[in-house]
Amino acid sequence: MTTISQRAQAIPISAVRQLALYESEAKQKNIQILHLNIGAPDLDVSSTFFDAIKNVSTHQLQYAPSAGLAELIEQVQLYYQKLGASFQKKNIFVTNGGSEALLYAFIATCEKGDHLLAPEPLYSNYVSLAKVAEVEIDAIPTYIEEGFHLPSKDQIILQITSKTKAILLSNPSNPTGVVYSVEEVRLIAEVAQEYNLWIIADEVYREYIYDGFQTKSFSLVPEVAQQTIIIDSISKRFSACGARVGFLLTQNDALASIFLRLCQSRLSAPTLEQVGATALYREDMDYITRSIPEFKARRDLMCQLLKEIPGVTLRKPEGAFYIMVELPVENSFEFAKWLLTEFSINNKTVMLTPGEGFYRTPKRGIKEVRIAYVLNEERIREAVSIIAKGLECYHPSTKN
Amino acid sequence: MTTISQRAQAIPISAVRQLALYESEAKQKNIQILHLNIGAPDLDVSSTFFDAIKNVSTHQLQYAPSAGLAELIEQVQLYYQKLGASFQKKNIFVTNGGSEALLYAFIATCEKGDHLLAPEPLYSNYVSLAKVAEVEIDAIPTYIEEGFHLPSKDQIILQITSKTKAILLSNPSNPTGVVYSVEEVRLIAEVAQEYNLWIIADEVYREYIYDGFQTKSFSLVPEVAQQTIIIDSISKRFSACGARVGFLLTQNDALASIFLRLCQSRLSAPTLEQVGATALYREDMDYITRSIPEFKARRDLMCQLLKEIPGVTLRKPEGAFYIMVELPVENSFEFAKWLLTEFSINNKTVMLTPGEGFYRTPKRGIKEVRIAYVLNEERIREAVSIIAKGLECYHPSTKN
Repeated sequence: MTTISQRAQAIPISAVRQLALYESEAKQKNIQILHLNIGAPDLDVSSTFFDAIKNVSTHQLQYAPSAGLAELIEQVQLYYQKLGASFQKKNIFVTNGGSEALLYAFIATCEKGDHLLAPEPLYSNYVSLAKVAEVEIDAIPTYIEEGFHLPSKDQIILQITSKTKAILLSNPSNPTGVVYSVEEVRLIAEVAQEYNLWIIADEVYREYIYDGFQTKSFSLVPEVAQQTIIIDSISKRFSACGARVGFLLTQNDALASIFLRLCQSRLSAPTLEQVGATALYREDMDYITRSIPEFKARRDLMCQLLKEIPGVTLRKPEGAFYIMVELPVENSFEFAKWLLTEFSINNKTVMLTPGEGFYRTPKRGIKEVRIAYVLNEERIREAVSIIAKGLECYHPSTKN
Repeated sequence: MTTISQRAQAIPISAVRQLALYESEAKQKNIQILHLNIGAPDLDVSSTFFDAIKNVSTHQLQYAPSAGLAELIEQVQLYYQKLGASFQKKNIFVTNGGSEALLYAFIATCEKGDHLLAPEPLYSNYVSLAKVAEVEIDAIPTYIEEGFHLPSKDQIILQITSKTKAILLSNPSNPTGVVYSVEEVRLIAEVAQEYNLWIIADEVYREYIYDGFQTKSFSLVPEVAQQTIIIDSISKRFSACGARVGFLLTQNDALASIFLRLCQSRLSAPTLEQVGATALYREDMDYITRSIPEFKARRDLMCQLLKEIPGVTLRKPEGAFYIMVELPVENSFEFAKWLLTEFSINNKTVMLTPGEGFYRTPKRGIKEVRIAYVLNEERIREAVSIIAKGLECYHPSTKN
């Protein structure tokens, strides 16, 4: 008998995916699902993107350069220049979404069995991608009561071992919406310097910061320039998740030459999507300015409505599209499943992401859910009222 | 100091990439380069592809399902049904090109340190992708004099060790153009059965077979259905390399569930390119029928012209777009470099792929080059006359 590798079997099935079965069942019963479970904004992509693709004049579709289309790399370089960071073109890589950028960062910084250190709760795909790269993730625990801000330096250092090769974090954060303060960014940089760790900074939500909260891109911390890897993407910046255009940036030339070899191993990222992305950066950076107030309003409304539900715990997040919320239930997966299988109002229900999958520490997050406020205000009102009514009606003890 | 992982440093720089520097130099001297070095056909993609993308009516660009767009999976299922193979939809996955399909196949079948067995010369990106997956490739040597057909069963078995987990091959083959006979396909299946090996069958050139040569897709060998992985792609079938739409297929349900987790780890493949690919399968399968005579004519011309050059050794290949050719030079890399840096006719020169990178066995392929006959007949004539004249003028001993 042929066998499947242990490493592949170790890749977890996401909680979202486990719920997908119940989602299908609900759809078969003609129940409409309000998706608070996935960070895919309902905003239209700028027509700039589609127009650029429609205007492609050649009818050939050759491989793009492995590192990415020169025009797109140039636009990304300019974008970072405006941010204050100067990356050479040869140090910028276009990837198949932020996901591939993360995978390449893990492979380049870690051997099999090495460890990454990441604040928890953390984006659950970090765990899947780490398993693909055969890397472990250790957690820096953060807590809802502290708005998921970082603990003290001592507590961070406590988690570092000889196996730790990099600190991995998203800022603003998926799933918590925390935005790390300038001091927290400095703290991470300091730890990375002292312990010779890479910093893998996932900044795909960079612009989505509300109320003037101050942070700093890791691309702007010169002390750690040689040990920093920036993960970026157009998915959130331009509501273009389905384009799968991500970026990998570094100031470290030796690392860049390795990233190039990784990119060459899969030939290239898709050409047309890069053409669209180029146009977005060149012609419609205003898209972001237009989107931020919309998300701020959604966040404010979502937080306000959720706070009105008895027993719900949350801190208003400073950025991104997400809130980690503690619900007055014993097990949020069971509640999320129940919403899909046994509860609806006017033939509508809500899909939530159970919190457990965002934690490395066993039993953490069992009462939490991640809510993505990517729907418009009307739908947010509807969704939260379904959650509220659901919590009133939910009596798991009598169900089992 | 932070360090770059050994595994990432082990990813080879391709010979093509090493020549890229000289290519740039030639371009700066305004020398036009005839590219025989890359398997990217100069044919137009069917307008069906572009039209489908232009007609996308939504302006949202959400993540596609991780396994791929349902419509595309359905079309691929139908395509295989016509071939005679029945794959369930849940056993078909859309990947970021054949490259990602290969990487996932390697990860799912091998642990770090396990070995693949592949006929050599072999597609050089197999080596890069294997390094990314930390898998070794052992060679089944094949020879130009035998048209690169497989050796006897005994000689194949000789290369199998306890570390060998899969046989990897492309049929029709990149880089040799060999098409394995039905008997050779049966032989591989027999060995895989006897030694419990997976078969990773890269059949992206499936339709490109000339002169009625008979082979068999591994998807049609029921004895090894549970241990076969098919790698497929639209890159060659529809001359759509830049779309990066590949496929991974298996009849093995347990393996399919692992492929799904791998696909989920990177969320999805690009949406628009999948829309275009769906239309190609649905509306323009004739594209292939139209392309084959064109490539056959190019092959015939290329072989005829090359054979007229004194000292050149080749066997007419049965399929794909490639010929491995032995040149009357000591070192084909040096000759390829010389063509780019020191030789041109009417300001034109030719880019070749040195053979060494296609071999695992040291010193094999040093006199060989891979030629991709992806240019039109006029350019083929021009390119071969440049090679012929180049060989006349080339005197490496006096250059060093």
